[in-house]
Amino acid sequence: MTIPHLMTLADLTPNQIMRIITHAKYLKNTSLPWLAPQRSEKASRLRMPSQSLFNKTIALLFSKRSTRTRVSAETAAVLLGGRALFLGREDIQLGVNENVRDSARVIGGMCQGIFARVGEHEEIEELAKYSPVPVLNALSSLWHPTQVLADLLTLHEHAQIFGLAEPAERVSLETGKSEKPTRTLLQSPRPLTVAYVGDSANVLHDMLVSYPRMGHKLQVASPEDPKYRAPKPVWDRVVELGCDKNISWGKDPKEAVHGADLVITDTWISMGQEAEKEQRLKDFAGYQVTEELCREGGANPDWKFMHCLPRKPDEVSDEVFYGPRSLVWDESDNRKWTIMALFDLLFGKWNLLAEKPQHPPAPKA
Amino acid sequence: MTIPHLMTLADLTPNQIMRIITHAKYLKNTSLPWLAPQRSEKASRLRMPSQSLFNKTIALLFSKRSTRTRVSAETAAVLLGGRALFLGREDIQLGVNENVRDSARVIGGMCQGIFARVGEHEEIEELAKYSPVPVLNALSSLWHPTQVLADLLTLHEHAQIFGLAEPAERVSLETGKSEKPTRTLLQSPRPLTVAYVGDSANVLHDMLVSYPRMGHKLQVASPEDPKYRAPKPVWDRVVELGCDKNISWGKDPKEAVHGADLVITDTWISMGQEAEKEQRLKDFAGYQVTEELCREGGANPDWKFMHCLPRKPDEVSDEVFYGPRSLVWDESDNRKWTIMALFDLLFGKWNLLAEKPQHPPAPKA
Amino acid sequence: MTIPHLMTLADLTPNQIMRIITHAKYLKNTSLPWLAPQRSEKASRLRMPSQSLFNKTIALLFSKRSTRTRVSAETAAVLLGGRALFLGREDIQLGVNENVRDSARVIGGMCQGIFARVGEHEEIEELAKYSPVPVLNALSSLWHPTQVLADLLTLHEHAQIFGLAEPAERVSLETGKSEKPTRTLLQSPRPLTVAYVGDSANVLHDMLVSYPRMGHKLQVASPEDPKYRAPKPVWDRVVELGCDKNISWGKDPKEAVHGADLVITDTWISMGQEAEKEQRLKDFAGYQVTEELCREGGANPDWKFMHCLPRKPDEVSDEVFYGPRSLVWDESDNRKWTIMALFDLLFGKWNLLAEKPQHPPAPKA
Repeated sequence: MTIPHLMTLADLTPNQIMRIITHAKYLKNTSLPWLAPQRSEKASRLRMPSQSLFNKTIALLFSKRSTRTRVSAETAAVLLGGRALFLGREDIQLGVNENVRDSARVIGGMCQGIFARVGEHEEIEELAKYSPVPVLNALSSLWHPTQVLADLLTLHEHAQIFGLAEPAERVSLETGKSEKPTRTLLQSPRPLTVAYVGDSANVLHDMLVSYPRMGHKLQVASPEDPKYRAPKPVWDRVVELGCDKNISWGKDPKEAVHGADLVITDTWISMGQEAEKEQRLKDFAGYQVTEELCREGGANPDWKFMHCLPRKPDEVSDEVFYGPRSLVWDESDNRKWTIMALFDLLFGKWNLLAEKPQHPPAPKA
Repeated sequence: MTIPHLMTLADLTPNQIMRIITHAKYLKNTSLPWLAPQRSEKASRLRMPSQSLFNKTIALLFSKRSTRTRVSAETAAVLLGGRALFLGREDIQLGVNENVRDSARVIGGMCQGIFARVGEHEEIEELAKYSPVPVLNALSSLWHPTQVLADLLTLHEHAQIFGLAEPAERVSLETGKSEKPTRTLLQSPRPLTVAYVGDSANVLHDMLVSYPRMGHKLQVASPEDPKYRAPKPVWDRVVELGCDKNISWGKDPKEAVHGADLVITDTWISMGQEAEKEQRLKDFAGYQVTEELCREGGANPDWKFMHCLPRKPDEVSDEVFYGPRSLVWDESDNRKWTIMALFDLLFGKWNLLAEKPQHPPAPKA
Repeated sequence: MTIPHLMTLADLTPNQIMRIITHAKYLKNTSLPWLAPQRSEKASRLRMPSQSLFNKTIALLFSKRSTRTRVSAETAAVLLGGRALFLGREDIQLGVNENVRDSARVIGGMCQGIFARVGEHEEIEELAKYSPVPVLNALSSLWHPTQVLADLLTLHEHAQIFGLAEPAERVSLETGKSEKPTRTLLQSPRPLTVAYVGDSANVLHDMLVSYPRMGHKLQVASPEDPKYRAPKPVWDRVVELGCDKNISWGKDPKEAVHGADLVITDTWISMGQEAEKEQRLKDFAGYQVTEELCREGGANPDWKFMHCLPRKPDEVSDEVFYGPRSLVWDESDNRKWTIMALFDLLFGKWNLLAEKPQHPPAPKA
């Protein structure tokens, strides 16, 4: 049996992406009653959606601090009957006391999966090369697949407010075919115009290789300096997947938000870039997402906002961030459900790469 | 449904306090057989007292090091079928990378409760304001409710040695009424004289708002400097609850222990006060709890001793601390059972604030 | 009931050692199907080998960083239905904020076992003296029993390639007697010649008190300086157990590997010895385990290699370490299964010191 790994959404087909976020929705719907306050013993008669990690352990190899990704992983593992074992920089100095190859073999021999947030992307590729169990990228210098899956789930959950995709274009999740529209757990929005205003970092990179293939148009604005543009290994994948045809990239935030249904940004100063703070604040002057920017740029008046958090006020005004346009809390909650879906399919069942649905047909509601 | 939180025992009625410690005693009695060495498969046929946290996760947001509170919380969550997720200062820098409001919403969206040991009391109030799940105070600059619940459970477990409350004064835990004495899981001691000799810190503050309402008299001795006296927000609650009528406060340890059935102290140098060590040792000269002090002060010859730990020899002599007067190990063990009761009632069932008993009637023994 | 502890294999009889590694083999065989990718719901009908830690917590008091020992313990506890609670140097400063005696009583009052990796060996003896629950040595300045149990399991798993013990010498694990050979879970190798080339540290110390009693001959080479030789408290136990008769100790690596069936080494620079690095590299010149050394020394041409990891290339060449002679990954995997056996027998059932088998008779295969 070949060992499945996931490094970036570029490794998945659109059908696989849809299958993962639909499975996440299924896990969310069926887990929430479990997590509600226990009012009676009846609760214990509910059926858990999956216990594929029962008594299993997933190693969290995190060389950087993390809140959302870590808490999502820890709570998702518990829900699946297992345990996430957080190993931070102080716990195991990956590549310091022992080379990555040996650590991958040792930890993979004891745990049933590795969820790794490392520094350079090469390091996670090295982990995957030698691990006897699946490796999932929790964040690397190049990619952030779990964040973009959470964003896509959030988008589909709000499909109604954006407007639904044409029935003919919908894919039936029961049969995997697209003949006629059937009831699904998760509806799809019509093709959207999505603006990304800010630094070219790992979140954007996974957007570049997935949004266009999900039918959406990406309009990116970042400063001209090459360090704010997608690095070559990322852009190569973008071109290879034909995504570049649905991406425009300039330096003017107002151009980027023109016609946008959804505006997304991220921090300008990632962990480790604190020394460049002053320069970066200068380079991103005018990039703050505000009502004014989007009005002047001509965004869809009903535009919505997403941000992967943590948020600094530099990037987005309080009015937008805490206001009715903001989908950030749904996005944050969905980190948990998409990571749970990945843990279930990748670590618990080793069939992440299947294209058929994992969940039973949606119950008749 | 309003979200229940617990910041201090001042927020609870005496009946609610009794209900929590009685529930703790019930959980203790029914859990201990589970925790004994497993001699046969029969053990697995015992019934767990509660699994209200089954597959749930409680976030432990701790900005300060902790042994007792943390280990209690971690082991209590496991017994209830769930998981405590420790997030220390290095894991999430609350209020540094992200404001408290956003962190409360994010973590509360993924976990089923927040047990927080923060710095300034305002911080935990802020957490509770924005969290979608209950917040329990694990220790703040002002209050330490879980410690005082453990102390009260210990006191009631030793009611027999202090002398029992008059039957007419006993509250039936089966009916919540106080008509006639019935068999209870936990007996109540007669009204006691309780001496507290030392610094006015969070443990004393929760004693001030609870002991007088449980029928006991508090005699406090602390140095005259206002920094060793209760701060205004605490004293306001004391007066508001009418507790001040049953509290005397002076600077002479011998006066405080006069007639005392129970003598309590705490460290003189809390975490973060190491710089003041020399001054504090000078100010507290003569405050060490010893046989001699209590004999000279005229304590009840059968006086008992409590201390929340960790203990430094400055505060109490080895003779007292390791001797037969000491209830410190029961106190320490009871941290676990009272925290388990709070986790069950607050996080698992969201009905901490009910006044009716949670446990079935005591089995006929 | 007296509380069982385990500090070193010197405390166990050869029968007890065999019983533990046989139990580890049983747990390994029966757990592996659970840990495989879940292909259907059938998996949940398998029977767990033991749930003796169900809802229990084992404290991991680790004052030093650790990968293998910690991950083994964490994953083993989960498999047994319980939880390992890692408390590192920053979490509880054992002996700093609170003396070891008080911490042992407090933590032992809340957890069902203590797995401790401390500094000086005296510290773990102090823990065991005051703990109300069993204490297991995870590594001390003198001993490393869990590592040597994993090595012995690995040796017995490979008994076939070394050659089996004479049937007449085999001990029946079903009856505990040695009359006639019966089918066992784990075969025993013939008496081997085992070379240890390197520093006299805790791994070697537990080899010195166990290998000779399991019928094997130990040939040790270490530099002449007394600091590279076994300290007196260790050698006293060696002599007391009569193990010295089966041990030769010199300074020439080639003499040590002469006739060796198995060559073992360890790091030359343990944690905390970084300052001595230069001197140590000089003192151990010529000690690297290589094909050449073993050919020139006259090892058994089929010699195998073991190393407790993490490995530095100084001690052993890549050719040996990553080649077919190397048993290091089995050794590493077996850390988990032997620690699981100890957790089950010591912490879960308190009968580690029994001599009768714990596992049901081996199924007829």
